[in-house]
Amino acid sequence: MGLIVQKFGGTSVADAERIHRAANRAIAAAEKGNQVVVVVSAMGETTDELIRLAREVCKDCVPPKREMDQLLVTGEQVTIALMAMAIHAQGKEAISFTGGQIGLVTDNAFSKARIQSINKQRIFEQLEGGKIVIIAGFQGITPEGDVTTLGRGGSNATLVAIGAVLEADVCENYTDVDGIYTADPRIVKKARKIDRISYDEMLELSGLGASVLQTRAVEFAKKYNVPIHVRNSQNDNPGTWIVAETPNMEHIVVSGAALKKDLIRVGIKNVPDHPGIAATIFGDIASANIVVDDIIQNVMDDNTANISFTVEHGDLDDIKPVVDRITKALGPGTKAAYVSDLAKVSVVGVGMRTHTGVAQRMFKALADAKVNIQNITTSEIKISCIISREDGPKALQIVHDAFELEKAKT
Amino acid sequence: MGLIVQKFGGTSVADAERIHRAANRAIAAAEKGNQVVVVVSAMGETTDELIRLAREVCKDCVPPKREMDQLLVTGEQVTIALMAMAIHAQGKEAISFTGGQIGLVTDNAFSKARIQSINKQRIFEQLEGGKIVIIAGFQGITPEGDVTTLGRGGSNATLVAIGAVLEADVCENYTDVDGIYTADPRIVKKARKIDRISYDEMLELSGLGASVLQTRAVEFAKKYNVPIHVRNSQNDNPGTWIVAETPNMEHIVVSGAALKKDLIRVGIKNVPDHPGIAATIFGDIASANIVVDDIIQNVMDDNTANISFTVEHGDLDDIKPVVDRITKALGPGTKAAYVSDLAKVSVVGVGMRTHTGVAQRMFKALADAKVNIQNITTSEIKISCIISREDGPKALQIVHDAFELEKAKT
Repeated sequence: MGLIVQKFGGTSVADAERIHRAANRAIAAAEKGNQVVVVVSAMGETTDELIRLAREVCKDCVPPKREMDQLLVTGEQVTIALMAMAIHAQGKEAISFTGGQIGLVTDNAFSKARIQSINKQRIFEQLEGGKIVIIAGFQGITPEGDVTTLGRGGSNATLVAIGAVLEADVCENYTDVDGIYTADPRIVKKARKIDRISYDEMLELSGLGASVLQTRAVEFAKKYNVPIHVRNSQNDNPGTWIVAETPNMEHIVVSGAALKKDLIRVGIKNVPDHPGIAATIFGDIASANIVVDDIIQNVMDDNTANISFTVEHGDLDDIKPVVDRITKALGPGTKAAYVSDLAKVSVVGVGMRTHTGVAQRMFKALADAKVNIQNITTSEIKISCIISREDGPKALQIVHDAFELEKAKT
Repeated sequence: MGLIVQKFGGTSVADAERIHRAANRAIAAAEKGNQVVVVVSAMGETTDELIRLAREVCKDCVPPKREMDQLLVTGEQVTIALMAMAIHAQGKEAISFTGGQIGLVTDNAFSKARIQSINKQRIFEQLEGGKIVIIAGFQGITPEGDVTTLGRGGSNATLVAIGAVLEADVCENYTDVDGIYTADPRIVKKARKIDRISYDEMLELSGLGASVLQTRAVEFAKKYNVPIHVRNSQNDNPGTWIVAETPNMEHIVVSGAALKKDLIRVGIKNVPDHPGIAATIFGDIASANIVVDDIIQNVMDDNTANISFTVEHGDLDDIKPVVDRITKALGPGTKAAYVSDLAKVSVVGVGMRTHTGVAQRMFKALADAKVNIQNITTSEIKISCIISREDGPKALQIVHDAFELEKAKT
């Protein structure tokens, strides 16, 4: 008996039958005596369909982001209503809420808004009245009443935020895979499902391209210590638990490997080496809402620096005008260059903190396979190598083999 | 220069091209120096599609009305966003609002809510900022924040309510017909478009089956003296103006004729003739949300009465259990009988108040054509005859000819 927040992604609510299957999971949890909150995404391809409509109307223009959000939130709103009906059809009581209706307040960064607060009062009232509460994922409302969307993976952010404010016992994240794998199983055939992983490891893996759960959701879960159980909505297999770190997790040197498939490196040459320059540059880039991957800075002999960083290929059109403005402002000697067709392969594990030789083992494995490493970046619990895009899948396989990730360790 | 509220129905916003055409009308009005508010319905068949989805999920159950409204309002929300984008694509500024976002507060009668108030502040702010304001028709919000729909013709109710609170110069109602006709042009080939018609006449015609504009919207327009201009969204023809009565409207004895095609007469025999009995009966029927057409009561010699009334054929399943309960309660002598396959042909005109002989002319024309009249009901400005359903179209034609409605009178 406890409070469970379940989340069903788009493929898990793609049609009436799947909605009923998800409803049955919620009902089953309620019948065990739990209070149940369900967060849902838009059905199947609905969001893509809405984007297609917007493009058809806005052929040679960029749709205003506020209106795009006004459009996109309807996808989840359809699902919450249908989910409530599906539960009703089974003779149980349910009530649906949009983000706005539960006071899920965000800033007004349309298309990638951040959650500021949730009014849990209305949710608890309904739970205490014996109802299953259905909440639209991915959406919020500004203090002025404009609707916003939370960006990529927004429904997971909703799941964890709701779990946190309600102090849920578990957030169950239902997807179309069995859990988190040691590597993308579409690339690495021997990839193994991980039973338990720490927030920090999951954070690194998410940031590195593991798409099941986004960084933001995991950060939030860590901050509020909400356990997440990633499960497959189509079966009853136990999934992967994402939890706080325990001492015996350190026995495992590398927990997983990940690949970012398509990156661009932006290099800015001859940056005057003044204090605060980097802060100015990356401040401008952040203002443009571009997420920067790894940053490398080398100071040259002539009191200038070379700064390079990687971004997702898809952000290229957004970043170019920003970088042009920056280089112009820094003076005539400063130049920008772009290298595309890059990838990044990484290994992650809290055990790295106490084990040595991990980096060497990775570099050697890649070298033996003639994969050229262009840049290396490390954190306390991960090692990343920038390589050419075409080497990506092969490199992931090599690294997975090198650390024998297919074998479960305890 | 003034304030114009335009409304585009579902067929006028059915696809990207039509949305652009509607957007261009709004822009054209704005470029003439007007402040422009646009009310839109859901695109084409969207509402039907959403209802189909709900039925698929709720196969053997009635979907909770709150959830049905939560579902249906998404239809209009999609249109407002796309309409704002279409205006943006033409280089003009627009902003979209749901019913909730402009504080269009209703009671909580889900699926047929009544408008209680509108917060005009937010609309005026945007208009004064030079934006075209797009508002979702058909929907509102309860004081508790639940979304509601306004029932059949709800978008027209929104149009007129917005026009009233903003004190608009005109409400332009764009449809797929050129205006209000002297009779349904699909039945009467010579039917003529009416240039101007009074609120009262339009009210009678709407109640009698003219489907372009619903009674509720006209009542509201009359109350707040908002002129409505019913126009065709596919051409620039002047349409029909619905306005306050002027003295010279009385020259026109009959303005239009209408046909209700499929009615059922419910007869209750041997009702004890006590004061208040009719109020009890029709109170019970109203509680069941059934709209009663004409009521006829005859008191018999034996201190009992026969009460009969007509309802739409589609309401038969709803009315039977209610009437059964009533007759049972009134005692064993009271019996109900149902006569189906009826129709009602009517003529309407404010000139009837000052002209005599209208009823006789109508009865004679029908008698000459051997159309049997079963019941007659009249108001100050209309005469209705209940006839058999198969005589309906013919009767409408006869009445139209008898009053020479095809000829414009001034």
